[in-house]
Amino acid sequence: MFVILYYDANEKRVSKFLKVCRKYLTWVQNSVFEGEITKANLEKLKYELKTKVKDNDSIIIYEFRSMNYSKREVIGIDKKENNKFI
Amino acid sequence: MFVILYYDANEKRVSKFLKVCRKYLTWVQNSVFEGEITKANLEKLKYELKTKVKDNDSIIIYEFRSMNYSKREVIGIDKKENNKFI
Repeated sequence: MFVILYYDANEKRVSKFLKVCRKYLTWVQNSVFEGEITKANLEKLKYELKTKVKDNDSIIIYEFRSMNYSKREVIGIDKKENNKFI
Repeated sequence: MFVILYYDANEKRVSKFLKVCRKYLTWVQNSVFEGEITKANLEKLKYELKTKVKDNDSIIIYEFRSMNYSKREVIGIDKKENNKFI
């Protein structure tokens, strides 16, 4: 499935979230990740994030079983890194 | 249609993007907006953003004609404002 993930976290935890998300998804821009992911890896990602989230941290995860009805458009430049770390 | 929009902009322009996006979509977290929008309003939104984007600014817009195959999950808190300004 395809996932879009963004977080709004306390500065103390931003680098922790970045590190976890980068293992499973592609960095798109500050605090935003996208990518194809297996159900198993998504569960791992969620579990790892849940162990780190505190106070007012907010993580939104959109899961898409199909991207047939979607379109991605870029205005300006696309900062999406094309290298995944796993 | 449903739209997810996120931007990564120069500090000088962040408030301009915020102002434009808030007219059409719901603020979710820093630099991230979501919401139902008509085709006509989406074109207006894109036009207004295109007049303001410069240099390394990056705006990603996902358009979804159907959200039937999607799921939204929140880890931590949901900062989504439930008031749209139009």
